[in-house]
Amino acid sequence: MAITLYELAGADLDVRFSPYCWRIRLALAHKGLSAEGLPWRFTEKDRLKFANSERVPVLVDDGKAVVDSWAIAEYLDSAYPDRPSLLGPAAGRAHLRFLNSWTDSIVHGAIARLVLKDIHDILSPIDQPYFRQSRERAMGKPLEEVVAERETVGRANLAAALAPVRTMLRLYPWLGGAAPDYADYILLGSLQWPRCVSRFDLLAADDPVLAWQQRGLALFDGLLANAKRA
Amino acid sequence: MAITLYELAGADLDVRFSPYCWRIRLALAHKGLSAEGLPWRFTEKDRLKFANSERVPVLVDDGKAVVDSWAIAEYLDSAYPDRPSLLGPAAGRAHLRFLNSWTDSIVHGAIARLVLKDIHDILSPIDQPYFRQSRERAMGKPLEEVVAERETVGRANLAAALAPVRTMLRLYPWLGGAAPDYADYILLGSLQWPRCVSRFDLLAADDPVLAWQQRGLALFDGLLANAKRA
Repeated sequence: MAITLYELAGADLDVRFSPYCWRIRLALAHKGLSAEGLPWRFTEKDRLKFANSERVPVLVDDGKAVVDSWAIAEYLDSAYPDRPSLLGPAAGRAHLRFLNSWTDSIVHGAIARLVLKDIHDILSPIDQPYFRQSRERAMGKPLEEVVAERETVGRANLAAALAPVRTMLRLYPWLGGAAPDYADYILLGSLQWPRCVSRFDLLAADDPVLAWQQRGLALFDGLLANAKRA
Repeated sequence: MAITLYELAGADLDVRFSPYCWRIRLALAHKGLSAEGLPWRFTEKDRLKFANSERVPVLVDDGKAVVDSWAIAEYLDSAYPDRPSLLGPAAGRAHLRFLNSWTDSIVHGAIARLVLKDIHDILSPIDQPYFRQSRERAMGKPLEEVVAERETVGRANLAAALAPVRTMLRLYPWLGGAAPDYADYILLGSLQWPRCVSRFDLLAADDPVLAWQQRGLALFDGLLANAKRA
């Protein structure tokens, strides 16, 4: 049974940087499933019409298309119940969804203020005008202004937002508890996003979140560590 | 089997305002357990020596003392497994712990910037110097300065921090999913804290978090709604 994953790519098609796509790469590895990754660019909306989607990840499993990272994670657990559980028991599912919602809103907002300009710069020239226009409309200012204070306010803002992760890492080795699960893949995917597009150091060298990320980079034979960086 | 709960109280002993104690009040109601609430003040450390604790909540169940709101919630689920589950399955426990950690750090930090001075003002005169000194040391400035910008920056800061809760409320009626569970009681307890000590409106009238809080106030025959406010 062949699995295909459409993944956001930069000018270099081997640079795959979407946080949502990385979550699914890690999820597939957790389930012991392999997939062919197909590079996709922001302006190639037509290529996703078959799935009735305008964004990635799109997973195609034996002809069935699944859209949206959370829905794909749920699909993988229900389609492959005999493989290691990704999301944990259905009864506690909403609790994990909160971590997903927090990452998408708070963490992504904080990371955008650090690397939004770097993302633009590694995109294909075809994608750059679309990216600049849509992101500047959303942020209400030029990309250059969004990241202007990243060395000071921007980095401090991310560090403050990650306080609950530090609490967790005093209590457990992983966000999933004793072993990594989708909770870890959510945030590892989000940190992989700036890692692939930028050399900016998001986290202080002594931040426990960095130590956890480094353990995450080594998972699945270095799936994240070996990813191509722009 | 008699249960006793030590609860933080103000100058008026009927004003019980600790967010951690409210979590346990809601947890007890969820489990269908009744408890006698004993008022306790910040400076009465000696009264908790029997439990080897310096803070509340302290729960005493048939002679056994349990300290710390999270530990008490876990205790209630393990001691009363035949009653409705509070925390959900053990396998997903760390996911709920993240929501607990996020509330304690981010939400409490944001709420403190709104009502720290109000808390001081409703305390017993015996507790006020202790409270002012310890909180001003932690915040690095006078209580009056902590809350100085609460109408503008302070309120906006809380509203921004609650973004992931708004996402959840678009997906589910409760943070626990289809029905309220400890995820809801964590945040409801935290919002009950300013509600008991202040008349300051934390949330905008059209904020979906406010609508959720109002549904929460009605739970268990209005346990939260009927609480005495200073």
